[in-house]
Amino acid sequence: MKKFIDKDFLLLNETAKRLYHEAAAAEPIFDYHSHLIPEEIAQNRRFDNLAELWLSADHYKWRAMRANGVPEDYITGGASPEEKFLAWARTVPLLIGNPLYHWTHLELQRYFDFYEPLNEDNAKELWKHANDKLSNDDFSVYGIFKKFNIYAVGTTDDPADSLQYHIQIANEKKTQTKVIPSFRPDAALEIEKQTWHTYLAQLEKSMEVSTGSLDGLLDALLAAVNHFDINGCRIADFGLSHPPLVPAKTEKEWRQAAAAAFSKRFNGGELSADEEENYKSFIVVFLANEFYKRGWAMQLHFFPLRAVNTRQSAALGPNTGFDAIADGDMCIPLARLLDAIEIRGGLPKTILYSLHPKDFYPLAAIGGSFQDGRTPGKVQLGSAWWFLDNKDQMEAQLRVYANMGVLPRFIGMLTDSRSFLSFPRHEYFRRILCNLIGKWAEDGEIDPNIETLSDFVRNISFRNAEKYFT
Amino acid sequence: MKKFIDKDFLLLNETAKRLYHEAAAAEPIFDYHSHLIPEEIAQNRRFDNLAELWLSADHYKWRAMRANGVPEDYITGGASPEEKFLAWARTVPLLIGNPLYHWTHLELQRYFDFYEPLNEDNAKELWKHANDKLSNDDFSVYGIFKKFNIYAVGTTDDPADSLQYHIQIANEKKTQTKVIPSFRPDAALEIEKQTWHTYLAQLEKSMEVSTGSLDGLLDALLAAVNHFDINGCRIADFGLSHPPLVPAKTEKEWRQAAAAAFSKRFNGGELSADEEENYKSFIVVFLANEFYKRGWAMQLHFFPLRAVNTRQSAALGPNTGFDAIADGDMCIPLARLLDAIEIRGGLPKTILYSLHPKDFYPLAAIGGSFQDGRTPGKVQLGSAWWFLDNKDQMEAQLRVYANMGVLPRFIGMLTDSRSFLSFPRHEYFRRILCNLIGKWAEDGEIDPNIETLSDFVRNISFRNAEKYFT
Amino acid sequence: MKKFIDKDFLLLNETAKRLYHEAAAAEPIFDYHSHLIPEEIAQNRRFDNLAELWLSADHYKWRAMRANGVPEDYITGGASPEEKFLAWARTVPLLIGNPLYHWTHLELQRYFDFYEPLNEDNAKELWKHANDKLSNDDFSVYGIFKKFNIYAVGTTDDPADSLQYHIQIANEKKTQTKVIPSFRPDAALEIEKQTWHTYLAQLEKSMEVSTGSLDGLLDALLAAVNHFDINGCRIADFGLSHPPLVPAKTEKEWRQAAAAAFSKRFNGGELSADEEENYKSFIVVFLANEFYKRGWAMQLHFFPLRAVNTRQSAALGPNTGFDAIADGDMCIPLARLLDAIEIRGGLPKTILYSLHPKDFYPLAAIGGSFQDGRTPGKVQLGSAWWFLDNKDQMEAQLRVYANMGVLPRFIGMLTDSRSFLSFPRHEYFRRILCNLIGKWAEDGEIDPNIETLSDFVRNISFRNAEKYFT
Repeated sequence: MKKFIDKDFLLLNETAKRLYHEAAAAEPIFDYHSHLIPEEIAQNRRFDNLAELWLSADHYKWRAMRANGVPEDYITGGASPEEKFLAWARTVPLLIGNPLYHWTHLELQRYFDFYEPLNEDNAKELWKHANDKLSNDDFSVYGIFKKFNIYAVGTTDDPADSLQYHIQIANEKKTQTKVIPSFRPDAALEIEKQTWHTYLAQLEKSMEVSTGSLDGLLDALLAAVNHFDINGCRIADFGLSHPPLVPAKTEKEWRQAAAAAFSKRFNGGELSADEEENYKSFIVVFLANEFYKRGWAMQLHFFPLRAVNTRQSAALGPNTGFDAIADGDMCIPLARLLDAIEIRGGLPKTILYSLHPKDFYPLAAIGGSFQDGRTPGKVQLGSAWWFLDNKDQMEAQLRVYANMGVLPRFIGMLTDSRSFLSFPRHEYFRRILCNLIGKWAEDGEIDPNIETLSDFVRNISFRNAEKYFT
Repeated sequence: MKKFIDKDFLLLNETAKRLYHEAAAAEPIFDYHSHLIPEEIAQNRRFDNLAELWLSADHYKWRAMRANGVPEDYITGGASPEEKFLAWARTVPLLIGNPLYHWTHLELQRYFDFYEPLNEDNAKELWKHANDKLSNDDFSVYGIFKKFNIYAVGTTDDPADSLQYHIQIANEKKTQTKVIPSFRPDAALEIEKQTWHTYLAQLEKSMEVSTGSLDGLLDALLAAVNHFDINGCRIADFGLSHPPLVPAKTEKEWRQAAAAAFSKRFNGGELSADEEENYKSFIVVFLANEFYKRGWAMQLHFFPLRAVNTRQSAALGPNTGFDAIADGDMCIPLARLLDAIEIRGGLPKTILYSLHPKDFYPLAAIGGSFQDGRTPGKVQLGSAWWFLDNKDQMEAQLRVYANMGVLPRFIGMLTDSRSFLSFPRHEYFRRILCNLIGKWAEDGEIDPNIETLSDFVRNISFRNAEKYFT
Repeated sequence: MKKFIDKDFLLLNETAKRLYHEAAAAEPIFDYHSHLIPEEIAQNRRFDNLAELWLSADHYKWRAMRANGVPEDYITGGASPEEKFLAWARTVPLLIGNPLYHWTHLELQRYFDFYEPLNEDNAKELWKHANDKLSNDDFSVYGIFKKFNIYAVGTTDDPADSLQYHIQIANEKKTQTKVIPSFRPDAALEIEKQTWHTYLAQLEKSMEVSTGSLDGLLDALLAAVNHFDINGCRIADFGLSHPPLVPAKTEKEWRQAAAAAFSKRFNGGELSADEEENYKSFIVVFLANEFYKRGWAMQLHFFPLRAVNTRQSAALGPNTGFDAIADGDMCIPLARLLDAIEIRGGLPKTILYSLHPKDFYPLAAIGGSFQDGRTPGKVQLGSAWWFLDNKDQMEAQLRVYANMGVLPRFIGMLTDSRSFLSFPRHEYFRRILCNLIGKWAEDGEIDPNIETLSDFVRNISFRNAEKYFT
């Protein structure tokens, strides 16, 4: 029996152990997509207690606690930080087979040198032990960045954002870690929402460009792209329920249709599904071409289903654990979208994600039809995301990537996290990666040359991302 | 090489063996969803021969025989019971990798102490041996219930059913096993079918409530719910081709639309797809709220595709092996359905099933957004069902459940069977469960504490279901 | 550690080794679906160099090279054969986990006795060594057929084809291998394409039957079916983006609708989606009934998404590596299609493929509802195809086949290849098959009787196909 989450965790063969310990482990981390808050980074924030650091914004944990019958009071409600922590500690032992179980214990080991399985019995001891540790300098944001050898983190930022905290961080030079903004224009795209009008006003104010027409909006977005570019942005991101359908129109007609949709909605009208698609597809293609010109990469995240529990979402707001997975046909619209981007002005480096596991193969197949023969791994199947960010689906994603493409070109893992405790997820990914490749080598399926394989895991762990986002 | 289906069948590690033999095996069985016939239970039916018991209603076996080129005469036709049995025995050795292979041999071992692989050579010996055994008292229905430690079985019953056999069984107290009705109102929902009108008449007669209007139908269904409730029902079930779409209407408009659809169809009209959805969604939500009031659980079974082979279905009737799997988008309609139930009057405990394996992750994600923080595991991903009721998909379902939720809260297995020989499927499930958890422990992925893990498998095997349905 | 791709490649247990070496390996190959060019076979073509043989038509390899950042010049462009080969050799080591890696090394071992992992260092040596070998008689087409014990190859042929090369091959008797035409009427079905009109003219000329009406077209296709039949055809093939929907019409109305669609399009009109479906479904059903009369088998290949990269497809033509996977609902239309074929005039032996892995279970379920109780394995889930033709999906397909049907009735592998170097893919399949069955036996899940299991693998490797296509 292997020991509980020890140094060889998830490494089930000797080659895997060598690959991980001798090659992957030492690589820095390029966490190119996260939801860390720039202000907290710039403040080099510290944390009062483990509940604040661990539980205060983590809707993954909240869902698990709710499924375990923990009352909301102990999740987002009025219970004390320690009570919330204890409720979590009682839930952890039941999370066998859930990524939260592994993440939790890796975080306890790496941040707090706590090596036991967490449960009700040792929770109070941990509470004291961890909170003591939190008073050390290691547990400021920059301390954590240093401890985990974070080469770069990508935050997720709105075009209207001034990027003041990114600028401050860069100017102050208090950390070696690059803090890179990502351009996420979802609010400009979500024309169906009530918030769209307010957002336009906000963008107008921020960019000092009138957003009262489609052309104005495009100008404002372009100004934002330029502002992000000079502040180090190398990556954009779209969160889309599905790939918007590029209409069978000439570019001129398409632009007119997008402009008409804009005006109709701007003047208070409700759009048909077609009108919405005209608008969204036009903006995505327009922006993608701009990303291409600047050498940025673009992420496309498909098929989240937001706020399905109306009552709870109204009570607690967005990102509180009431989102789910959507489905729907996506191959033809995605292929048309990428093709339109390519034809109209060039396809940027692109990473394709879906929240529905059925889409891994089609995403890889469609993406693989848009490689350009210049940039290795130009179009990539993204790492298993959100609900799929678990050992089973991470391994599934790696297998699909390898079966459909050139795995050593993969840019690897990102945390997508809101927590400064999540960096061990890179370790988790690297262990799974090394175990998979090690297994292939030990089974005689691939050349077991350790130098070659070590290069591969180093590249996937860090170096590919470093090149891809340069 | 492990021995052929022996005591450690499917238990590939030492922890798995301990978990199964020391914890899971001794738990009683709560078979909360089956298609056993109440009348046969009340009669404490006995069986003349193995073909009658094993083959006379099992469309899984029929499909396998047809795929093996066995003529219909030996399946549902005029061949003698022994000939049919021999045709089956010739097919069994070819069913490697099919759950029927494992079920068959577990049933032979547990019911008939027959430990060889069945084939043409030993079939005649088994025929004699098994038929001799069938004359023992053990092989009455109640004998089987006792032998397999059946705590409860849930039958599947129509609202119009008088439940006379359930009442008889309860009154006679000849068995320790609880025989629990399940409320399955599919016939009332299937407004598109020719049989809907006759069914309304039947329900009217049975409930003594006029079913000539939507309100009348709702009253009749409510009377049936109450009748089921006082007779011990704790669980309802919907068999639906897909989640009906809750319209974007006020409740008043929705009710009017449902009533209009009722009237149109009642008067011989054909409904549009929208009209059908208005009707079905309204009734599902209405009933679900009633289940909630009574503390019942609700099962939703999606995506069967019935009677696809018109000629054979016409010749042999329903449930004869000509059904299949459907597909279609389900996330948005399901999320809206559960949300509408929650908002309108409360969501009951809910178990979500789909016959399409692509739906496991989305079902778990959507269900996980409707936990209430009171009932552990309130909304559950159901056990792998029907065509997916095999080792691969059972393990897949357990993994999705664990990755997306709190596995130790799972209420576990049901047979969904029409046969009194199917109870070893619970053993089959428990072995797969113990092997999976044992593997995690042996690989160092989870705390190997045997007491904790034993509790988990006891709970999943039986105790969670007992609580969930109380 | 197992040795790199040695004689026990992929055989991870002792039973697997016995099954492969003692049973599967010696069976001839029935490659019932390929894209080999009849003219090249009839010419008993020889090859100047490894690049010509290996790289000149293989869009799988082209995609991998593009994803690796190899410029088009070295793929389909003006670089020399040796330069192209070297670019490929540099890509191979990065293809870990990709079927091309295994195919490449099996081909090097079996054709060229080259046993090292290919890489940049040994590429020049191989180039010389392989090109020397190519001058031997073994490396003519017939030499390859003999060396690999090819019992039969199925080519893929258009109804308008004269089959002159098949006739020549049969007459000349220079090879023991049967070269069998397959009837692939896609061009007649693709009424939406610009090429449809020209194709009708071509078919008219070839069959000497006027194709100016639906009836004319059906007569011409029937003449082609008969021509194929007398020249040994036993199998037809449809490549369809999705199953065309059989309309809810009487046969007479349906035929009229198909005829109307024909006329409208023939006279230059654009068809609605419904009109297209009327036309396509009618022709598929008409032809399928004709196949049934002649005892042919029919393949249905669903969900390719062709030429998604407009610019590259325009530059390089079809089948150059810019195709992908489509999605969409398929269960109801497929079930209706098979049912319509069955009712109208009989369903032929049918093999169902989808390029989307989500469809494996539904295809097996729908197919399993149309078995006839005469032909073992009459309706089959086809082998993992194209993008899915990799170890993971081949094993997944075998598991679904076994779980849903009678695996020993499976007709097994085909290459679907354009290359005379692809025959080791049968070996690859057989190893995967033997390993899976061997594992079941070693784990005690099935009767380990080696004679029975040997028969199964022999049948699946070759004998079932031989019977199925007779």
